Amino acid sequence: MSQAQNRYKADLREFQFVLFEQLKVDELLGKEPFAAWGREEVLATLQMTYRFATEVSGPLNAVGDQQGCRIEDGRVITPEGFKAAWKQLYELGIRALPASPEFGGGGAPKTLTGLVEEMCCGANAAFNMYPGLTFGAAELLEHCATQAQKELLIAKMLDGTWGGTMCLTEPQAGSDVGLAKTTATRNADGTFSIQGTKIYISAGDHDLAENIVHLVLARIEGAPAGTKGLSLFIVPRIRILPDGSLGEFNDVALGSIEHKMGINGSATCVLNFGENGRCVGELVGGVENAGMAQMFRMMNTARIAVGIQGAGIASTAYLNALEYAKERKQGANMTRWKDPTAPRVAIIEHADVRRMLLDMKSRVEGVRMLILKLCHHQDSFEAFKGVDDEKAAYHQGQVELLTPIVKAYGSDQSFRVCETAIQTYGGAGYIKDYPVEQYCRDSKIFSIYEGTNHIQAMDLVGRKLGQNGGRHAMEFFGDLMKFVAENSDHAELGAEVRALGAAAEALQGATMKLQGWFMSGQVSLVPLASTRFLEMMAVTTVSWLLLDAARVALAALPNVAEGHPDRAFYEGKKYAALYYARNVLPSVEATAKVLDGGDTSALDISDAAFATL
Amino acid sequence: MSQAQNRYKADLREFQFVLFEQLKVDELLGKEPFAAWGREEVLATLQMTYRFATEVSGPLNAVGDQQGCRIEDGRVITPEGFKAAWKQLYELGIRALPASPEFGGGGAPKTLTGLVEEMCCGANAAFNMYPGLTFGAAELLEHCATQAQKELLIAKMLDGTWGGTMCLTEPQAGSDVGLAKTTATRNADGTFSIQGTKIYISAGDHDLAENIVHLVLARIEGAPAGTKGLSLFIVPRIRILPDGSLGEFNDVALGSIEHKMGINGSATCVLNFGENGRCVGELVGGVENAGMAQMFRMMNTARIAVGIQGAGIASTAYLNALEYAKERKQGANMTRWKDPTAPRVAIIEHADVRRMLLDMKSRVEGVRMLILKLCHHQDSFEAFKGVDDEKAAYHQGQVELLTPIVKAYGSDQSFRVCETAIQTYGGAGYIKDYPVEQYCRDSKIFSIYEGTNHIQAMDLVGRKLGQNGGRHAMEFFGDLMKFVAENSDHAELGAEVRALGAAAEALQGATMKLQGWFMSGQVSLVPLASTRFLEMMAVTTVSWLLLDAARVALAALPNVAEGHPDRAFYEGKKYAALYYARNVLPSVEATAKVLDGGDTSALDISDAAFATL
Repeated sequence: MSQAQNRYKADLREFQFVLFEQLKVDELLGKEPFAAWGREEVLATLQMTYRFATEVSGPLNAVGDQQGCRIEDGRVITPEGFKAAWKQLYELGIRALPASPEFGGGGAPKTLTGLVEEMCCGANAAFNMYPGLTFGAAELLEHCATQAQKELLIAKMLDGTWGGTMCLTEPQAGSDVGLAKTTATRNADGTFSIQGTKIYISAGDHDLAENIVHLVLARIEGAPAGTKGLSLFIVPRIRILPDGSLGEFNDVALGSIEHKMGINGSATCVLNFGENGRCVGELVGGVENAGMAQMFRMMNTARIAVGIQGAGIASTAYLNALEYAKERKQGANMTRWKDPTAPRVAIIEHADVRRMLLDMKSRVEGVRMLILKLCHHQDSFEAFKGVDDEKAAYHQGQVELLTPIVKAYGSDQSFRVCETAIQTYGGAGYIKDYPVEQYCRDSKIFSIYEGTNHIQAMDLVGRKLGQNGGRHAMEFFGDLMKFVAENSDHAELGAEVRALGAAAEALQGATMKLQGWFMSGQVSLVPLASTRFLEMMAVTTVSWLLLDAARVALAALPNVAEGHPDRAFYEGKKYAALYYARNVLPSVEATAKVLDGGDTSALDISDAAFATL
Repeated sequence: MSQAQNRYKADLREFQFVLFEQLKVDELLGKEPFAAWGREEVLATLQMTYRFATEVSGPLNAVGDQQGCRIEDGRVITPEGFKAAWKQLYELGIRALPASPEFGGGGAPKTLTGLVEEMCCGANAAFNMYPGLTFGAAELLEHCATQAQKELLIAKMLDGTWGGTMCLTEPQAGSDVGLAKTTATRNADGTFSIQGTKIYISAGDHDLAENIVHLVLARIEGAPAGTKGLSLFIVPRIRILPDGSLGEFNDVALGSIEHKMGINGSATCVLNFGENGRCVGELVGGVENAGMAQMFRMMNTARIAVGIQGAGIASTAYLNALEYAKERKQGANMTRWKDPTAPRVAIIEHADVRRMLLDMKSRVEGVRMLILKLCHHQDSFEAFKGVDDEKAAYHQGQVELLTPIVKAYGSDQSFRVCETAIQTYGGAGYIKDYPVEQYCRDSKIFSIYEGTNHIQAMDLVGRKLGQNGGRHAMEFFGDLMKFVAENSDHAELGAEVRALGAAAEALQGATMKLQGWFMSGQVSLVPLASTRFLEMMAVTTVSWLLLDAARVALAALPNVAEGHPDRAFYEGKKYAALYYARNVLPSVEATAKVLDGGDTSALDISDAAFATL
């Protein structure tokens, strides 16, 4: 059992199906703003990333897990090979793909970069934190910084010369960001002196780039309490001179790094800003008290990216388990179970293993479609922006609505799929010779960072459902019911499409129920139900998208020659949709019934009644 | 954040409730076969074990995880402190409690030793593997060995002089034990030469005892293929002379140890028997080809023990998360969420955190009751054995029926509770300063070893449900429906008891469905449904036992003085039952409906359709 088994896997045929057959991204390609992108460029980019993921960053996944990061002379040393991988990643230009061409970006559609990101995350989630955070910081600057700041910083953050981070969390301020105590004191030259401690800073220090541009939330003296008084500062680790060259150390000290359950190759840092009173920051965009709004731009990207991390790991976990199930021989066919002379079969022939595999397949492909649907709305927004404002607003609204669902469901399902992958391997899944136990550990953080999944759920029910007078939600249900109406008599999928319609109705009922609670002053019931509501909405959406994929696949099937691998591929699309609709979708109505009961036992119980401690 | 937070926690008040109020074990105490055991002895034993768990083995849990085991000069070196803990454990006599007094055992009731085991597992699951396996091997010998073998071996395995293991798995023979290739060749003196390689042997080597008694499954030349031709051998690491002193090395070589996701302090070994042709084994009980039946005695105990491991870890994960939720301040009360000047509250005040806590509480206490119910049947069997054979058979039947449920549901829920505990902590849950991420990693193996949870499910539906003409299942449903009938008008629990009745009917319906598949030749549908059927039966049983606990608590409540901690304790019992019945129990009917659909997509899909690889 060798490292060779710690292999990243992806199904490029699946990516092509999603892009060109289901989402028909051809319709967006070759014209503004994606004029530089045709089908060939898209396919070449997927191929290039696939090679990087399987040959460069993927093989470092177990290495990073085993070695972790260490501190030497006050700096983080990343695992062996990370430096070379970083260099290659930026040479290939992979990280600049989604950014605007103005500062050296590729201007690629998000439907493409979503899949690129999936491969990068799936191959090595820990390594990908460094370039991922850097890109997020650069993207924020692209939207919020002054022209001078943009010109000074962005290009070097897109080509890997400098790294980037987002610094929100403090010991007393986790989910409750508004408690941040880091201070910013105005200097005579318009800059600020930054002082405070930030924790859980991913990629907060490393040896991959010559400098790190921290984006730091801090409170200017006299600013209001809470999130409204937070401003965002550009705080480079080493000061950057006006000509872009590096000056002196900016008093950003590495305190320590965390020892974690997973993503060990990613340095999670405590950073001390201004211990010696010499840490200088500059206001992002020159605007005070706009820090949360600015940070949310990065955070929205980051939340989608977390859903993508989930999809990436879940997918390779599934594909590794599938390969193992095809190779590992154990037991006889069910019909000859007790016959010791019966030939041993690959475990994929056992019904429960098949069930686990199809369960994983449907969740992996469903979450991927959920993400790509969001990305497609992003691309469509860009395409219609300034051309058809109505349409652009519709697409942006769907992005808003789907973001918390992608983050929460993508991360939860990732852990669930990894658990199932381990179970498929059996004892081998628990040992480090195989990759799935690491996948499971790595993926647990996804439900926590960038806003816990409950925060996502509250964002969905407390903000997104009612946004623009509930327009985004109404349009979502409109699209969904249109699909149901158009396909409920489908020859092979009709029954499942009708079940989807019933689930959609249950979901709408739950939406009304939640609104009722808001309006009748029973607001305390909302957070009790929100996490489950988000899951209901995710399951309904995923079932819809899987059925849509099956519809597309079944329409294409008759034209595929006998023996062509596409026959099996399209068949797989059908069964993933049927399985999910028959086995997972029913949970929507069941949960609706539970929420309808309005159980308040968790609120009624006294603190002392939880346990005698 | 210090090691002090890596603390084992248990709620002794809860243990007393389960034993004396809900199960009324007083009725069994003080008479044969538990004449030596009164309430005082029981309480003293719980106290003693609690001290050992919190002061001795518990503090070594994180140490064992960090250090793991290592090999030096061909021997396993266990983590620091394990040796001293082993010594103390045996000095206290904790491990001998359940064994028969004939060989130095305590003859304690299983209801007590189940809780003792829970504390030992919860405090340090990895450490407890060594004495746990040793006890299992000793117990097997007590039932299956010749008198001479018993006299030679058992006492020293109960006092910690020698360790013990069970050696089943081989590289090609995991779940499929019958594929074992290890051979036993008869020697002139009646002993056997053993040759073969065993893998995944927990506690297969260590430095805690002077010798290790391996129980090894091997095939005597000419024996039938499959499990029927397997015999069980006593294979000490160092040969044991007739007077009990140690002779020469028995050619049992340590091949390697596995690097695992968790339970790092437990050595998982590859053992090579007879590499030099000098490994001597002796038939257990002198009987050939009875190995599987003999091993199953140990395996049944081990399966129950795995459920107990699950309960132990889940319980301490829950109690740690509870403590953290009471201490960690973050966010304002929901009604003043957006007011930055509102006082910050402990996170236990947030609805979703309360929901997670009550979810964990109900699962932890429910699984504990499931286990203790089984233990109570074991004790009752012992009490009625030879006195009232009818009653004894009834109790033994319930033990048979509940064993796979305890193993599978206990292990699955453990992982689920640990996941929820991590989520309750937020980011802190992911780092090693707090104990829950280790609990999560440690507990993942429980769903795999001692027969995967699917094997448990097949044991339940393929064997236990129909055992004795279905008598055990009928008696189970009889007990359950009696509870429903007697309590469906309960003032505070009536609605939930009636919901339990409906779930029980759905479960019975699913039972009939499964039997129908068996009889109509649709046997391939059974393994597709069995894992979910087991969970349905587990959830129904747990809901029943939680409602029974609530009934007992509510009956006791009026007699408790205002301000006495028992008021909160009893209230907690009520809410755990209400929560589980309202939020978890509905899954039974929902799953019944899903299974009723008879979806065969996982069987219909072709292997090639899973992915393009």
